[in-house]
Amino acid sequence: MTKYKSYKDLVEQIKRVLIEYGANEFSAESVAIGLSETSLRGVDSHGIRLLPHYLNALKNGRINGKPNFQFKETYPAFLGMDADNAFGHAAGFKSIEVGMDLASKYGISAISVFNSSHPGAMASFALKAARNGYCCFSFTHADSLVQSYTSTSSFFGTNPICFAAPRKDEKPFCVDMAPTYIPWNKILECKEKGIDLEEPVAVDSFGHPTSDPNKAKGLIPIGKYKGYALAAMVEVLCSTLSGMEFGPHIPSMYGSPISKPRKLGQLYIVFKTDVNVEATYFLETLHIMSEEIRSQVSISENNTVQVPNDPQIKTESERLRSGIPIPSNLYNLLFN
Amino acid sequence: MTKYKSYKDLVEQIKRVLIEYGANEFSAESVAIGLSETSLRGVDSHGIRLLPHYLNALKNGRINGKPNFQFKETYPAFLGMDADNAFGHAAGFKSIEVGMDLASKYGISAISVFNSSHPGAMASFALKAARNGYCCFSFTHADSLVQSYTSTSSFFGTNPICFAAPRKDEKPFCVDMAPTYIPWNKILECKEKGIDLEEPVAVDSFGHPTSDPNKAKGLIPIGKYKGYALAAMVEVLCSTLSGMEFGPHIPSMYGSPISKPRKLGQLYIVFKTDVNVEATYFLETLHIMSEEIRSQVSISENNTVQVPNDPQIKTESERLRSGIPIPSNLYNLLFN
Repeated sequence: MTKYKSYKDLVEQIKRVLIEYGANEFSAESVAIGLSETSLRGVDSHGIRLLPHYLNALKNGRINGKPNFQFKETYPAFLGMDADNAFGHAAGFKSIEVGMDLASKYGISAISVFNSSHPGAMASFALKAARNGYCCFSFTHADSLVQSYTSTSSFFGTNPICFAAPRKDEKPFCVDMAPTYIPWNKILECKEKGIDLEEPVAVDSFGHPTSDPNKAKGLIPIGKYKGYALAAMVEVLCSTLSGMEFGPHIPSMYGSPISKPRKLGQLYIVFKTDVNVEATYFLETLHIMSEEIRSQVSISENNTVQVPNDPQIKTESERLRSGIPIPSNLYNLLFN
Repeated sequence: MTKYKSYKDLVEQIKRVLIEYGANEFSAESVAIGLSETSLRGVDSHGIRLLPHYLNALKNGRINGKPNFQFKETYPAFLGMDADNAFGHAAGFKSIEVGMDLASKYGISAISVFNSSHPGAMASFALKAARNGYCCFSFTHADSLVQSYTSTSSFFGTNPICFAAPRKDEKPFCVDMAPTYIPWNKILECKEKGIDLEEPVAVDSFGHPTSDPNKAKGLIPIGKYKGYALAAMVEVLCSTLSGMEFGPHIPSMYGSPISKPRKLGQLYIVFKTDVNVEATYFLETLHIMSEEIRSQVSISENNTVQVPNDPQIKTESERLRSGIPIPSNLYNLLFN
């Protein structure tokens, strides 16, 4: 039977365990909040289920739980950040703090992070900025799993595009999406269950579409060459700019030695909402636009047309009441 | 029989005609270069074929050919720009000039443009920045033609995402894409020819997929809700931020009075490549990555795996030799 815990309890216990494993306060809190909030929002693939992997990475040296972040102040509003092989969550939240501070002064700022690791869901960082009244892009590269258009193989990762903006009377607007129809986790899940994918959105070793998870070697990008192009764009933003390796040269999350830092790159861009309009106009107009979208006629009676992030906001509200479902292995680790 | 003219001749004649119709030097040159270069790159939908429409808009008052650009210096690195109902091309090139200047000082800059009009292909602006050694995002909103996910109707436009970055030994990396499988022009073209779309990537008035151009009321976004989310993101960047109208409230390109300014918004973000690495490292690494992508195994013998912008670079090289094909109505206007 599935067990549930509140967001607050989950954050507290995850933080405690991470500190036990050697993480410092800021790192532990960053990961605890990032993973718990992601599960609270229903994005279970990037939530608390990652904790055992993270603990393993921390124990074996891939991750530095007590990083010494160093900023390269190359330009007033665009900094480099050496994350010292920290948790990607810690590097991300630190970047947003610094990015908001710089954006409040210059209007826009960016932080190009290097020597980083897996940051979980990019929405964690963009939403933090949006809750504080800023617009924010957050990008990371990832394991090489997106079929290159017309190729038999993958080059780029399922590199997500994430953007958030603040709204009046409701949680922020947020887009957080990989350029593929499904995440690679879906392949693993179908393999475990012995079932096929609902649609042939993976590719086999010949580059042909397949719905057989056992034959899947990569994922089909959305919009044919368009999803592939988006993955390429994010790769430039996260590796060429940061100085980290690109595409197939990135040490994979589960396939590379757990003692070896992954040396990933991320990019955060933070900006003010009031360059042309009052901040209150921005907040109100985005709320009005959201309400207009929701009032559109749906193709079926049972549906409401949704704004990006509506499904996650709904789940968050449900799980704030019911608690967050905890996988049993994790429940034992955290609460026994 | 199709007639051809060189890029140089085309720019010169388009500029001459625009000046005859009342545009100032900067506006005429911006539009002439933007349209000619877009045709040179083979993106004919956004190239010189738009000139008659632009001249019509200029003659009838939708476009101000002698705009007085005014910058709002709200923040040091993030400016607002009142485009005074200029050609979108003129506002765009001016934004890039100012944006590069600010980025050289602050590392990153942004210009939120309001009171603008149709800017043609967004690649024109991002490529200008990239040729000068900068990375650049350029965004515009557009006519409401993208089916809202699970709705019978459209809300957002075919709002493009464009990004360019400089490379060593070759033209810049560039992504410039709408979040739909086809442009609306494809619908018009199929209607004229009396043929169906190759795939059911449009939607009828019930929100159901159709390949019949006569039933098409909107376009299916790529990746289901993902393309719709990208369109929403770009709308926030171009309308909420600029203070212009959003989605269905934008006066449509061909459906609204030609005497009435469209009052569109655009966003340009320009940044340096050398925040973490030497500029030469960035240029070289992006070239090396591009070559690695091209060396991947193709699914068929006749193909080479391409990097985004490779098809446009190839066409550019061909049309620099053969000239640019000119529609006959345009040929008479420009060269007789």
